[in-house]
Amino acid sequence: MNLQIDDCIFCKIIGGKLSSKKIYEDDYSLAFLDIYPTSKGHCLVIPKNHYATILEIPEFELAKLIRSVQKIGAASMKALRADGFNVLQNNKPAAGQVVNHLHFHIIPRFSGDGLKISAASRKAEEHELAEWESALKGHL
Amino acid sequence: MNLQIDDCIFCKIIGGKLSSKKIYEDDYSLAFLDIYPTSKGHCLVIPKNHYATILEIPEFELAKLIRSVQKIGAASMKALRADGFNVLQNNKPAAGQVVNHLHFHIIPRFSGDGLKISAASRKAEEHELAEWESALKGHL
Repeated sequence: MNLQIDDCIFCKIIGGKLSSKKIYEDDYSLAFLDIYPTSKGHCLVIPKNHYATILEIPEFELAKLIRSVQKIGAASMKALRADGFNVLQNNKPAAGQVVNHLHFHIIPRFSGDGLKISAASRKAEEHELAEWESALKGHL
Repeated sequence: MNLQIDDCIFCKIIGGKLSSKKIYEDDYSLAFLDIYPTSKGHCLVIPKNHYATILEIPEFELAKLIRSVQKIGAASMKALRADGFNVLQNNKPAAGQVVNHLHFHIIPRFSGDGLKISAASRKAEEHELAEWESALKGHL
């Protein structure tokens, strides 16, 4: 079963209607270079079926997808002699998701590259932690 | 089989030697609040066995771990009324990894929160893409 939608650029890449620099493909996932890379060899790993975010993908396909992420990460370390890599996956526009098809970024990192893939943080107050803990546990 | 190491703070949390705000636990994974949150309800999801990065974890445990990530993401949306969330996983110090025990960050996002979980990017040159494609394919 291949579930693709017409107005999705990643579905078009999967269907061969748009070209891409594919580096890996299996029955469930596809990996290709991001043409707007944050770093050398920045890749995207996507499921072949269309799911908007990580929330919609079935467990089996998610397992296959993250295994591909792991493979691409390993390849980045070797092929690009990276010193590390970030795995980033944004859900919904509020989180910076631009293409509405679930994708994992694999961002190779090099010592001293100066990239900052994170935002500022601060020590939480005890009452905040208690409130969040209670709210989250209520939905798990 | 529980594989933990003595000098790892996440292994100490798993073993109950350090306290944490646990929000979810199953046979393979544990989720707890980050006490230095980037946003409201920022959680970490970790495997119970100690693996330094995503590269070392066996496929089965990785599948279980990402399923937990999915669950925590869903709970964040509901419990915290988040508008989205980022999944971030850093491998090696060069990528900003601080604790040497594989962990996924779940960072709830709220429209207009002003956080930037990414770094600048630029359009890649064709010759760069060709070079990276070739290098990566050689290791996949």
